[in-house]
Amino acid sequence: MFSTSIIPRVSETDGAGHINNTVAPVWLEAGRRELFRIFSPELRFDDWHLALVNTNLDYVAQIFWQRPVEVRTWVDHVGNSSFRLYEEIWQGETLCVKGTVTYVHFDYAAQRAAPVPEAARARLLEHRRAP
Amino acid sequence: MFSTSIIPRVSETDGAGHINNTVAPVWLEAGRRELFRIFSPELRFDDWHLALVNTNLDYVAQIFWQRPVEVRTWVDHVGNSSFRLYEEIWQGETLCVKGTVTYVHFDYAAQRAAPVPEAARARLLEHRRAP
Amino acid sequence: MFSTSIIPRVSETDGAGHINNTVAPVWLEAGRRELFRIFSPELRFDDWHLALVNTNLDYVAQIFWQRPVEVRTWVDHVGNSSFRLYEEIWQGETLCVKGTVTYVHFDYAAQRAAPVPEAARARLLEHRRAP
Amino acid sequence: MFSTSIIPRVSETDGAGHINNTVAPVWLEAGRRELFRIFSPELRFDDWHLALVNTNLDYVAQIFWQRPVEVRTWVDHVGNSSFRLYEEIWQGETLCVKGTVTYVHFDYAAQRAAPVPEAARARLLEHRRAP
Repeated sequence: MFSTSIIPRVSETDGAGHINNTVAPVWLEAGRRELFRIFSPELRFDDWHLALVNTNLDYVAQIFWQRPVEVRTWVDHVGNSSFRLYEEIWQGETLCVKGTVTYVHFDYAAQRAAPVPEAARARLLEHRRAP
Repeated sequence: MFSTSIIPRVSETDGAGHINNTVAPVWLEAGRRELFRIFSPELRFDDWHLALVNTNLDYVAQIFWQRPVEVRTWVDHVGNSSFRLYEEIWQGETLCVKGTVTYVHFDYAAQRAAPVPEAARARLLEHRRAP
Repeated sequence: MFSTSIIPRVSETDGAGHINNTVAPVWLEAGRRELFRIFSPELRFDDWHLALVNTNLDYVAQIFWQRPVEVRTWVDHVGNSSFRLYEEIWQGETLCVKGTVTYVHFDYAAQRAAPVPEAARARLLEHRRAP
Repeated sequence: MFSTSIIPRVSETDGAGHINNTVAPVWLEAGRRELFRIFSPELRFDDWHLALVNTNLDYVAQIFWQRPVEVRTWVDHVGNSSFRLYEEIWQGETLCVKGTVTYVHFDYAAQRAAPVPEAARARLLEHRRAP
């Protein structure tokens, strides 16, 4: 499991007084930073191999900017050329957002999916969520 | 159906050269502006009655910043105290993102769901997606 | 003068109820889209020649998300390898933000400033602000 | 001096491969979080007393998303009803952005500037930049 601490920003709130819903995908992507290194060790865009194909997020509780949040990131499933993560955003003892995101291992030059390399698969599975 | 034209921005691209995936929820929310008026005719936050509870988005094709996009917004289902929209982002002839978003009609003062008023239900159903 | 109409978004508001100050630079950059074509006719990043070096913005009045805004963009001065724009954000009859932004014509391969080409200079000067 | 460490995000890059210029104001505002507590100890928007009136930023060097950045925030000057901060963004040994931001102590109910309270003035001056 990857754990990422995030300090909310004024600019991430909205007029309803809480964190705007569009910020959750931003924080969840931020929580994948170390996972991205499995595919792009130096985080270089000319060495990028992932394409996001689905996000399915439940917004369970409002998030407020006054307190830090924690993003938790697990590997949920690794397929042939894709993998699915399970992710949560917590604020204190409150689960605020939970859901999945699916990436395809993508060959941008050929513009098509490519099998997940065995080394990457093994490293992903180290972060598998216990059933 | 609500149709909203959006001009992509440099700041919405990312280092991979296309529009970053976190921008799709921003554009989809922008596409709900007129629908929001059903519940908040003057779009005032002290008269806000909606809470987003789920988004489920398929990213079908990359979006580039060079050309305008169109957000299309339909009502998919209206329940007792919630409703679900079906939304698409098109760039030219290419469907790029599609998915659903579910809102609860929310009483922020009481911090709980409330039935969708009949007048709002009728107006929502005018924008229903043909089966 | 370039004029760009922008519809504010819920996600651009903040908890104080107005448009967050960090959104003004985003809208002002959006207002430079057609000006960018002077240097990058097809708006391609592998054909990008500009680097922003200064912004100086006065926030004169609050902006609210309920009504459209207009971004106005003039060329203020063209130097040897740089140029300065003067920009305004209006909401209805209210001037909300005004200021300047300075770009250097930049050779990203050589990582240094380069003279503004004569053709680009002539096209920039067509958008000069009357004294 | 306030020091704030920030981990850049994929969504903060742009197609030119670096951090987009519109992100600097976001990070600089994030760097004011503890300073905001001088005026709003619990960071509540119904207890907000500041209005940003000017930003003047020099973009000195490109910022890349691969490495953390540090935002440094000093108090530069405290006037009767306003104060000016001096701020920097560093990435490793490289100064990337520097500039000032000016706030007015604002009475949102009366919609006008109000004197900076003496207690706030004293606390601001604890963070003054050495000449």
